[in-house]
Amino acid sequence: MVYVLRLGHRPQRDKRVTTHVALTARALGARGIAIWRPDAGIEESVRKATQSFGGDFEVRSLKEWRPFLKGWSGPRVHLTMYGLPLEEGMEALKQLVSEGGPGESGSQEPLVVVGAEKVPPFVFQTCEVNLSAGNQPHSEVAALALFLDRYFEGRAHHRNFADARLRITPSAKGKRVEDRKDVGTH
Amino acid sequence: MVYVLRLGHRPQRDKRVTTHVALTARALGARGIAIWRPDAGIEESVRKATQSFGGDFEVRSLKEWRPFLKGWSGPRVHLTMYGLPLEEGMEALKQLVSEGGPGESGSQEPLVVVGAEKVPPFVFQTCEVNLSAGNQPHSEVAALALFLDRYFEGRAHHRNFADARLRITPSAKGKRVEDRKDVGTH
Repeated sequence: MVYVLRLGHRPQRDKRVTTHVALTARALGARGIAIWRPDAGIEESVRKATQSFGGDFEVRSLKEWRPFLKGWSGPRVHLTMYGLPLEEGMEALKQLVSEGGPGESGSQEPLVVVGAEKVPPFVFQTCEVNLSAGNQPHSEVAALALFLDRYFEGRAHHRNFADARLRITPSAKGKRVEDRKDVGTH
Repeated sequence: MVYVLRLGHRPQRDKRVTTHVALTARALGARGIAIWRPDAGIEESVRKATQSFGGDFEVRSLKEWRPFLKGWSGPRVHLTMYGLPLEEGMEALKQLVSEGGPGESGSQEPLVVVGAEKVPPFVFQTCEVNLSAGNQPHSEVAALALFLDRYFEGRAHHRNFADARLRITPSAKGKRVEDRKDVGTH
């Protein structure tokens, strides 16, 4: 399991990018996402996707993020273009995961931190691993996608949920969506 | 080489997401991007990144995208969650690349098409390959990142450009940026 912490979200300005971060987290195998600053609109739109496409992806907003980051009982990894190269950082992280995290309960679930434009030094220092999914300026959405893909060793990108109302069937030339109206009405 | 076509961009609303698309294209090895609808602000901000971080990534706006897509002389691949699974679509694409594209010049450079919310059937039909980087709703930024990573077999995410003014040195706990003021003043 993997959990995502999205920092520095500015409602309005970052609405769409943070939605992309959350949907990418869900699509590529994360268990849930915590968002700071709070944004009920994004929570709602991500929940709607989950209601239609299934699974139990968790989305929550945080009023304060420092205690959440500090109190996480598994290893913490911060995605930043300033960090260690992907392979090296991933190896360090997997070692920490196998040992169990620094918290009392020693959880093996990593917290993946993605920031918006500026990330305070506290994040670099608190996270056990600072990992770069590329040393050129790019995108926290891209960084999260590459991270999750590598972390789950390429197994997470085609997923089906038993309780999905909408299901997509791969197609060479169009859109094939199965609408199972009898399920997913939770 | 790979070129990217970003469709359905709505200036204002999609400004940030399209910037993420363009920076991801540059960071992960594409040669350039064409954007429709035109947006001089995005062109400018992507050029600024290239001026600082080096390379010769091309960015342009299109007034009309259909002739551009139709006239592309290499294979065309559309990233969509409705498409063929990543591995299967990638195999089909690489076959087309090795044969040379459908145009008169038979170029081997694929055009990767990423849309915003709604993509017209013309795109599904014109592109030789519709490829899904995941069958759950996610993000065109994530899809492009996964596509380029697979296409370049994981080699593209740490790049250095000879003419870079700013260079990032990987670091375990902070930011290390080399500012080479004598270069990159083009």
